Amino acid sequence: MSHDLTLAANALRMLAIDAVQQANSGHPGMPMGMADIAAVLWSRHLRHNPADPHWPGRDRFVLSNGHGSMLLYGLLHLSGYDLPLSELKAFRQLHSKTPGHPEVGLTPGVETTTGPLGQGLANAVGMALAEQLLAAEFNTPEHKLVDHRTFVFVGDGCLMEGISHEACSLAGVWGLSKLVVVYDDNGISIDGDVKGWFGDDTPARFEAYGWRVIRNVDGHDFGSIDAALNAATEDSGKPTLICAKTTIGKGSPNKAGGHDVHGAPLGAAEVAAVRQALNWPHAPFVVPDEARAPMDARERGAAAQRAWEAVLAAYRAAAPARAAEFLRRARGELPADFDDRAAAQLAAVADKGETIASRKSSQNSIALLAPQLPELLGGSADLAPSNLTQWPGCRSVEKAVAGGNYLHYGVREFAMVAIQTGIALHGGFRPFGGTFLMFSEYARNAIRMAALMRTNPIYVFTHDSIGLGEDGPTHQPIEQTATLRLVPNLDVWRPGDAVETLVAWQTAIRHVNTPTALILSRQNLPHQPRDADTLAAVRRGGYVLVREAAGQPLQLVLIATGSELDLAVQARAKLAEQGVNARVVSLPSSFVFEQQDSAWRRDVLPPGVPRVAVEAGVTAPWRQYVGLEGAVVGIDSFGESAPAAALAAHFGLTAQAVTEAGLRCIAH
Amino acid sequence: MSHDLTLAANALRMLAIDAVQQANSGHPGMPMGMADIAAVLWSRHLRHNPADPHWPGRDRFVLSNGHGSMLLYGLLHLSGYDLPLSELKAFRQLHSKTPGHPEVGLTPGVETTTGPLGQGLANAVGMALAEQLLAAEFNTPEHKLVDHRTFVFVGDGCLMEGISHEACSLAGVWGLSKLVVVYDDNGISIDGDVKGWFGDDTPARFEAYGWRVIRNVDGHDFGSIDAALNAATEDSGKPTLICAKTTIGKGSPNKAGGHDVHGAPLGAAEVAAVRQALNWPHAPFVVPDEARAPMDARERGAAAQRAWEAVLAAYRAAAPARAAEFLRRARGELPADFDDRAAAQLAAVADKGETIASRKSSQNSIALLAPQLPELLGGSADLAPSNLTQWPGCRSVEKAVAGGNYLHYGVREFAMVAIQTGIALHGGFRPFGGTFLMFSEYARNAIRMAALMRTNPIYVFTHDSIGLGEDGPTHQPIEQTATLRLVPNLDVWRPGDAVETLVAWQTAIRHVNTPTALILSRQNLPHQPRDADTLAAVRRGGYVLVREAAGQPLQLVLIATGSELDLAVQARAKLAEQGVNARVVSLPSSFVFEQQDSAWRRDVLPPGVPRVAVEAGVTAPWRQYVGLEGAVVGIDSFGESAPAAALAAHFGLTAQAVTEAGLRCIAH
Repeated sequence: MSHDLTLAANALRMLAIDAVQQANSGHPGMPMGMADIAAVLWSRHLRHNPADPHWPGRDRFVLSNGHGSMLLYGLLHLSGYDLPLSELKAFRQLHSKTPGHPEVGLTPGVETTTGPLGQGLANAVGMALAEQLLAAEFNTPEHKLVDHRTFVFVGDGCLMEGISHEACSLAGVWGLSKLVVVYDDNGISIDGDVKGWFGDDTPARFEAYGWRVIRNVDGHDFGSIDAALNAATEDSGKPTLICAKTTIGKGSPNKAGGHDVHGAPLGAAEVAAVRQALNWPHAPFVVPDEARAPMDARERGAAAQRAWEAVLAAYRAAAPARAAEFLRRARGELPADFDDRAAAQLAAVADKGETIASRKSSQNSIALLAPQLPELLGGSADLAPSNLTQWPGCRSVEKAVAGGNYLHYGVREFAMVAIQTGIALHGGFRPFGGTFLMFSEYARNAIRMAALMRTNPIYVFTHDSIGLGEDGPTHQPIEQTATLRLVPNLDVWRPGDAVETLVAWQTAIRHVNTPTALILSRQNLPHQPRDADTLAAVRRGGYVLVREAAGQPLQLVLIATGSELDLAVQARAKLAEQGVNARVVSLPSSFVFEQQDSAWRRDVLPPGVPRVAVEAGVTAPWRQYVGLEGAVVGIDSFGESAPAAALAAHFGLTAQAVTEAGLRCIAH
Repeated sequence: MSHDLTLAANALRMLAIDAVQQANSGHPGMPMGMADIAAVLWSRHLRHNPADPHWPGRDRFVLSNGHGSMLLYGLLHLSGYDLPLSELKAFRQLHSKTPGHPEVGLTPGVETTTGPLGQGLANAVGMALAEQLLAAEFNTPEHKLVDHRTFVFVGDGCLMEGISHEACSLAGVWGLSKLVVVYDDNGISIDGDVKGWFGDDTPARFEAYGWRVIRNVDGHDFGSIDAALNAATEDSGKPTLICAKTTIGKGSPNKAGGHDVHGAPLGAAEVAAVRQALNWPHAPFVVPDEARAPMDARERGAAAQRAWEAVLAAYRAAAPARAAEFLRRARGELPADFDDRAAAQLAAVADKGETIASRKSSQNSIALLAPQLPELLGGSADLAPSNLTQWPGCRSVEKAVAGGNYLHYGVREFAMVAIQTGIALHGGFRPFGGTFLMFSEYARNAIRMAALMRTNPIYVFTHDSIGLGEDGPTHQPIEQTATLRLVPNLDVWRPGDAVETLVAWQTAIRHVNTPTALILSRQNLPHQPRDADTLAAVRRGGYVLVREAAGQPLQLVLIATGSELDLAVQARAKLAEQGVNARVVSLPSSFVFEQQDSAWRRDVLPPGVPRVAVEAGVTAPWRQYVGLEGAVVGIDSFGESAPAAALAAHFGLTAQAVTEAGLRCIAH
């Protein structure tokens, strides 16, 4: 058996270095260093079925040190996934299934997109949490429908990143006993020997988080690796860290153990030297059957899935409705009556006409949605009473109590967002989580990664402008809404009243491949009355809230979002008093508005009519809507600490200022 | 003596709760909980002079849990800083010196702006590092010119944040023995008892970082606190964490120990109850002399500064040039001959006309600047060979070696940027640090905080577009340059060739109150020839690189930055072949360009002439320059993994595409 894995591990090494050499780009060091561990894990421990990469019962594998992508592609290929040698030969080429870093959705068997260090580890914490919560919710004493593990590879870089602290502290608190992390302790990072910048006693650190730590594993000894993985899968009520000593670039006679082997092709001469050192007579991309045999997971994977399907069948026989519900949630489908209920809820909220903060109408929206969507898994980064993310009947997740649907992430925004991504990728839950809009910045790259991965978490970002008042410039978003709008595939809603807030939530829930940021006020927002057509138009992302007077030419368009919507409505009235015929356009989601057909967009924003935009934030991005000739009422400096009303006057965010801007535009 | 501090500590409590009550906004819990520790530290340990908050020899104090700002304002007031009771009464009001969170530059004695949790701690690591490096550079066996401590207060929130991991791991590696952190272990955060989300064994965690930990200190016993601080200032070669058990809201009979006391006024009834419980008969904002006496630091502070000035005088007598250099650097002044040298260097680089990557011309710029600027303190987040941040003669900072001017931050972008801010606030160094532009997102809020604080670090962000090629969408910035440009008071340069790169560096060095982000290419950029006027115009941030043909009307303006500058130059030539008279405007820094007078801006971008912008990133922000009628050639989707040339063709970032966009604009 040991001999078989030697060949398999060397096949992984050679595929990696040959692909990197052919691409003249890539990272050979990590695949060579972790090949032995990977061979043991994937051949003897990982439960997966190459024929069905979406089987809900599979173990999850996350390559958090994603630059070692060729290791994963080699594993998937040898295991029998639909990733032929032709794809490996096209490593890092346009439209291949083997991009520079692993991308979920593109390559069968890739569970999450990695590369930005530390985040894969946090994704994996989310996956393991989802498994634990789904198991608590659906398993019965007779039928363990949910029972799988999450394995993660991490490198020094992942463990230096702050997000590793946040995510692993939470994994400890939550007691994620089916999470197994293998630390590739090779002592090398890009700048060289890590001793000069990474002196942590990592095992002690993880024990301080409440993890089980398996120390000093020889990452090149199959027996030691196997024993460690066996020990790691014995339940301890804790997540497990396996500290594996490895040699980066193992197998390279002249480059192993140094940082040159990390991120550049070995070069033809050294590739040849590796062939000789490993006694590997095969041409590039030729893998002998003896190397493939132990890695081929097709038969045992199909058998594992059949066994799980037998459990599912028994479960269905005993509890058909629960089984159907499990499968609905695993598929990420909404309940059949969602649209009908949504329409009724919207009509009721419009009728009620409440003047409340949008963080409060967000909470009301959650309370409406939660009873029909048991998959909602809420949370906040220690701001539940401020973000208003809890709802009647939500249950906090605690280690001692099975299940729950509300997560106290602590003051850990980056991990919160990356964990949500992991939960969404795992399936079975729709995660949402809150923090102050300002601290979306702590999680910035995880938000982007969620958008890149086409997942659909929901972010509840409250305290969205100087309207938060006295906390001052450190907490007052100026540019954050605008910068979030620039992230591709992120839907950003800044609703102007309770009606728009509910539509924002409904839209976010309907998104399958798009995450949503809800930008919400601390302060009350007046209700805006709407007729039926206008109410129906909200979901278009941009619509005419108040029309110009009929029978006279439209002279001015006032565009606003969120807490400034009412300023535009007030300004329109003032302008009418002065004989100016203006309309108010509400633009809560430019993302959705830009997806409307051009007839809708031209109808809302007729070309050639002067425009004024008002939003309590940076002004330059609004040139996209008002052009060089229009006006923008906003803020281009940092905020100040003062009561909200004083700040509005100080920064000129008033109906009067909007009115004057409108008059200037027309005179232009 | 203990009696005196009881009064002083209670004065701090009462000032905090009365100010919060008067503002009807703020955080009483932390000041009440940490008042006893603060009274001991500030009366018996902190070496500072209220009459001169900028004295270089002072100890630094950082309130990382900045929401407890009233504790700091109370301390500054009682110590004798220029912060009268009238300012305390104006807590959280517009234009007061007592904003919701402490702001450096606004309030005398505030060393850094805090509020976003964890970052103050990282700033303090930067301050302690600067002290250690300055001491190594300037102290002599006879004269200890640099010899002060950095004290920090942190709460649970700071220690949950990932940046605490990054910064404290580095503090351990660097052996910052004069850094003393006091952990306010009150067991409460906003969501309630932290046990449900914060289970770390924090002392064990910090020992794993190589810190000295003083455990189980009673944070309400003056003797225990004093003993812990005495122990902490005995040199161990390690930073020190004092774990102090406290009660949040200590002194409040009905609210102490709970999370309600954290962030809201106590209410009039409970304020009255506190008065009674603390036996405090005084009206709001009345502090008896017995409470003030032990805290008044004016006399002992002046004496301490006089003693330091005596050391300086002796130092000056022994080494006048070194003393002058120390003072120049402490004042943050450039060498007198900087401008002359800068002009000569620019002329030489223009003459040389190299076609190299801007990350390489950045390295060349550093090599030119470093010999004349010994205050340069470089570094990278484990990407030195990629960011090209090292230069001939730089010396890595290591624990075992005194001094150095290059920092290996490891894979810790957030801490890197916040530490740089701390270094800049301390004085004596000009820090710069590199990472991939994409991973600026990990540090996003620290960049903003540096801009808010009006500090001047320099960020070297390389691999700035799809031009990085095969690493793929996880590493390819699309929206990052645009989002950085939206941060108030952040200068963003995206230079188009080696000349612009040197000007960007020179501008960044000259900035006193503004941080600079340098956006640099992985790939080579062709040299652009310039006459003397054009060369002199680069520093304007936006200028005409290639003029239209004389004697004929200007028909089109092509605006470009960075790697796309040469596409615009090529497109202009193609357009000329088709009879279109276009100019090329290079806009490496819109921040600097917008500071030019309107005559300059109108001369560069004449109103009414159609415009096309080209940049390898999101297009919408360019409407600020091209209006609704112009065209933008850019990318609005995520990138792809492929060789750079294939990507340029795939995404239409070619001279041909720019040419066609120009033709369409004119036909419009």
